[in-house]
Amino acid sequence: MHAISFIQDLAVIMLVAGIVTILFHRFKQPVVLGYIVAGFIIGPHTPPFGLIHDEQTIKTLAELGVIFLMFCLGLEFSLRKLFKVGATAFIAAFLEIVLMIWLGFEIGRYFGWSTMDSLFLGAILAISSTTIIVKALGDLKMKNERFAQLIFGVLIVEDILGIGIIALLSGIALSGSVEAGEVFATVGKLSLFMVVALVIGILLVPRLLAYVAKFESNEMLLVTVLGLCFGFCLLVVKLEYSMVLGAFLIGAIMAESRQLAQIERLVEPVRDLFSAIFFVAIGLMIDPAVLVEYAWPIVVITLAVVVGKVVSCSIGSVIAGNDGRTSLRVGMGLSQIGEFSFIIAALGISLQVTSDFLYPVAVAVSVLTTLSTPYLIRVADPLSNKLAAVVPLPVARVFGMYGEWLRSIQPQGESAVLAAMIRRILLQVGVNLALVVAIFFVSAFFADRLALYLVDWVQAENMQKGLIWGAALLLSLPFLIAAYRKLKALSMLLAEMGVKAEMAGRHTARVRKVVAELIPALSLVVILLLLMALSASILPTLELLLLIALLAAGISALLWRWLIRVHTRMQIALLETLEQRDPH
Amino acid sequence: MHAISFIQDLAVIMLVAGIVTILFHRFKQPVVLGYIVAGFIIGPHTPPFGLIHDEQTIKTLAELGVIFLMFCLGLEFSLRKLFKVGATAFIAAFLEIVLMIWLGFEIGRYFGWSTMDSLFLGAILAISSTTIIVKALGDLKMKNERFAQLIFGVLIVEDILGIGIIALLSGIALSGSVEAGEVFATVGKLSLFMVVALVIGILLVPRLLAYVAKFESNEMLLVTVLGLCFGFCLLVVKLEYSMVLGAFLIGAIMAESRQLAQIERLVEPVRDLFSAIFFVAIGLMIDPAVLVEYAWPIVVITLAVVVGKVVSCSIGSVIAGNDGRTSLRVGMGLSQIGEFSFIIAALGISLQVTSDFLYPVAVAVSVLTTLSTPYLIRVADPLSNKLAAVVPLPVARVFGMYGEWLRSIQPQGESAVLAAMIRRILLQVGVNLALVVAIFFVSAFFADRLALYLVDWVQAENMQKGLIWGAALLLSLPFLIAAYRKLKALSMLLAEMGVKAEMAGRHTARVRKVVAELIPALSLVVILLLLMALSASILPTLELLLLIALLAAGISALLWRWLIRVHTRMQIALLETLEQRDPH
Repeated sequence: MHAISFIQDLAVIMLVAGIVTILFHRFKQPVVLGYIVAGFIIGPHTPPFGLIHDEQTIKTLAELGVIFLMFCLGLEFSLRKLFKVGATAFIAAFLEIVLMIWLGFEIGRYFGWSTMDSLFLGAILAISSTTIIVKALGDLKMKNERFAQLIFGVLIVEDILGIGIIALLSGIALSGSVEAGEVFATVGKLSLFMVVALVIGILLVPRLLAYVAKFESNEMLLVTVLGLCFGFCLLVVKLEYSMVLGAFLIGAIMAESRQLAQIERLVEPVRDLFSAIFFVAIGLMIDPAVLVEYAWPIVVITLAVVVGKVVSCSIGSVIAGNDGRTSLRVGMGLSQIGEFSFIIAALGISLQVTSDFLYPVAVAVSVLTTLSTPYLIRVADPLSNKLAAVVPLPVARVFGMYGEWLRSIQPQGESAVLAAMIRRILLQVGVNLALVVAIFFVSAFFADRLALYLVDWVQAENMQKGLIWGAALLLSLPFLIAAYRKLKALSMLLAEMGVKAEMAGRHTARVRKVVAELIPALSLVVILLLLMALSASILPTLELLLLIALLAAGISALLWRWLIRVHTRMQIALLETLEQRDPH
Repeated sequence: MHAISFIQDLAVIMLVAGIVTILFHRFKQPVVLGYIVAGFIIGPHTPPFGLIHDEQTIKTLAELGVIFLMFCLGLEFSLRKLFKVGATAFIAAFLEIVLMIWLGFEIGRYFGWSTMDSLFLGAILAISSTTIIVKALGDLKMKNERFAQLIFGVLIVEDILGIGIIALLSGIALSGSVEAGEVFATVGKLSLFMVVALVIGILLVPRLLAYVAKFESNEMLLVTVLGLCFGFCLLVVKLEYSMVLGAFLIGAIMAESRQLAQIERLVEPVRDLFSAIFFVAIGLMIDPAVLVEYAWPIVVITLAVVVGKVVSCSIGSVIAGNDGRTSLRVGMGLSQIGEFSFIIAALGISLQVTSDFLYPVAVAVSVLTTLSTPYLIRVADPLSNKLAAVVPLPVARVFGMYGEWLRSIQPQGESAVLAAMIRRILLQVGVNLALVVAIFFVSAFFADRLALYLVDWVQAENMQKGLIWGAALLLSLPFLIAAYRKLKALSMLLAEMGVKAEMAGRHTARVRKVVAELIPALSLVVILLLLMALSASILPTLELLLLIALLAAGISALLWRWLIRVHTRMQIALLETLEQRDPH
């Protein structure tokens, strides 16, 4: 049987991984490091040689490992968690990622590495390791402390930014250049795709899963989940995004399903199997000679990771209004790199834009920073005490005043409620407009193909374009109307609550009226401009456009209530899925 | 990324499998059939063509599916269940397998197929499908009825006999001939290997798993379980047995672990994933042209399966003393073929001894008999009523009397206890002697290699052989002594309980004494003869032999108590594992 060499590989991987991870567990080190060391032991660069026969198949399975890792990360993500994450997480994650990418890039250039290598090094250093942090905090029994909650918030933001970085790097690697316009276009398209995928996904997928779950067969649920996961990854790949993004997104979509707990229970063993293969495959690639050759860069990068992350995350945390001790703990906790770095390094290899040494260097830095993480967390408290003693009194007073001031400008009571409502309405408007944009993009994308079908019915090219444009507009109507109504509601809200009598004096009523009228009018103009811009690619002649616009206006007027009802029903379905996940 | 075509294959498999199985579930058909149909749809023989790119990798994963299927079958097996299975199961399973192999072979010859094809056809028809039966009985809500329990007993015996058939077929396929002596040697060696593997495995594996389980990490337990599973499969393959046997045996060993429930929960999703791929891969191979060409054989074989299994299992059940209605239900329930048949058909292909058409024919027969199973079970009751009305009274009376007689000769009360004790002692003696045989086999196997190590210490070849033989004897001593002591206990038991005063009259005391002395003496002679036969391959010269025998006798006398204690401790460890599995 030809599969015997493959089974032998699996046997060697699992046996060595089992033994090494048990040893690592005994010495209180993370299991992930055990896998990497196991891979190093059975790898081609260390004796005994040649324990792995079919490296190609192992690598294919390792890529499955990446998909399952990101899928489970998506399952543990969840939009609700992202909405609840505070300012600390956003500020710290942003600061950290920007600083680390810059630092990594500069270090790469300093060692004379190519631009691509340096850029990838920056990305590799940007994201901290959820796996390692969860393990370290669990071992130290600190999972429920406040700074740990802040760290988990940072990690959630990092995940979503990391996904963006991967998409950006793929684009940059393919085009070979970094241009601001291109970056913005990529980020814009990516955000649009994510919003559309999330909205459509959350509308459809949890319903499908609930239907399958009714059969009470773990097997069928698992097959459906895996089918959706791989199918979505494939779709994402066809749209020229990374599979990693697809796995994460479909995971985040399924995180809104009522079957989440069951799905996690079923997928976890599969993830453990393939992620073990993934981490062992990382170990397989380590060549001690490379590590010796690059010892100096490894030391420098390791120090940069620890210092850079501690500084950037601590400062970000302080800026968001946390005290020095908590901030230092947050910074110390995030000071390592892990699975995301391996995925980015693997991306560089598979796109053939990075040098061979980058992967082992990243692994070595990850191992060193992982080993230091528990000690750094433990040292945070004594260090903050020492710092407090060293910092001159005026500086400390400035910090204290900053915190006071920050708390004073936080919206409280009525205005906090108002701020939350405004945020909510703006989010809804954004989602609706994103869907409209997506409808026109998809129409433009398929316009040529649709025209082929229409050619039997309508000869004139203008008429074809008119029809497609009209159809897109018709589909968009519920979302456009909804966006307009939300904006109108917002304007009334602002007029009533925002224009205070004590400020506007006797003009209050008039100012309110202006605000209540002006915002909807302005937004109508903006929406129309958006539509014009969107239809640039499938714009028919002016006469047809006017005709269609009139038709659309007529339809809007006639079906206003029905369109609102359609949208409301969709919105209710979406919110139900998002909010009623745990009815039991 | 090179893995994209592979992900695409997986996506297609899982998506189509998901949709088809949901449809099959709606129409109350087994999920397994859904997988096969899904494979047929995406296969190369039906439009749309070319949905699978990397058939080789899919086939490799399908073989993993076989391993996981058999591993889980082993987990659900368990020696305790086998010990509890009644006479019905043994008689029905034996009759069924012998009849079906003969029937399959004759049908193959009738259609002019080669000897190997016919033999494999026989084996394919021999074993019924646990998956299908469990599903069908579950759907009919009959799982807890008496006949269902009998069926499950038959299935357990079938599993172990099926494992034997696979080992036999591999041997026959390699040697190319069927000789009685060879068959006996194969069965003997196989039984020996299974006993030794089970004893050593049950002593070691559950302890190791309990140790790993203490870390309370699902991931580490899973990796350890998979490492042991693949590692054992590899060992079994090196001993030139089938991987299937290895997976089943290690499953049966782990079934005695206290972590069984946890292991099943962790392995099930992995099995579901790979077994789905396995069944889809089966569907991939179906060529409609072959089915049309072999329509006539398929019909004949399907009828043979249904009629042959109903008749043989019903008769077996009647012989074991069940009433006609229950027996008919047992027969009807077992009248299909399934996963075991696919594994045997795949074995034929991978050994390259069967023709290409055999696999699709087996699949077609399986599909047809699977579809008919629920109807057959439902029709069993009306049919038995009709048969009761048709059968002439004298025949019915003969059956009734047979049942009466059977019940009358069943040991009851004291003699039933005695029979159970004798069975237990004989089993223990058998296991101990099997271990002794294994020790000598392994010594003989490694004798040449050991001699290489010994050559630095002992020059004379005779001395080397003497040392190896002596070491084997020394290792065997605890088991030999245990076997002897069990036999002595048996002889006393038989003397006291078996020789009744009313039978032997005034000779009672004397007969008892003879029995109590004779059996140990006889068994000593048998054991010595066995040792002689065993040491044929590494027998040193006569003088050395005598010396070693004397030494062994001396050691036995000196260390008698210690050797007994060693053995007792091992036996206690084994029985503890077997009996104290559910302490919670």
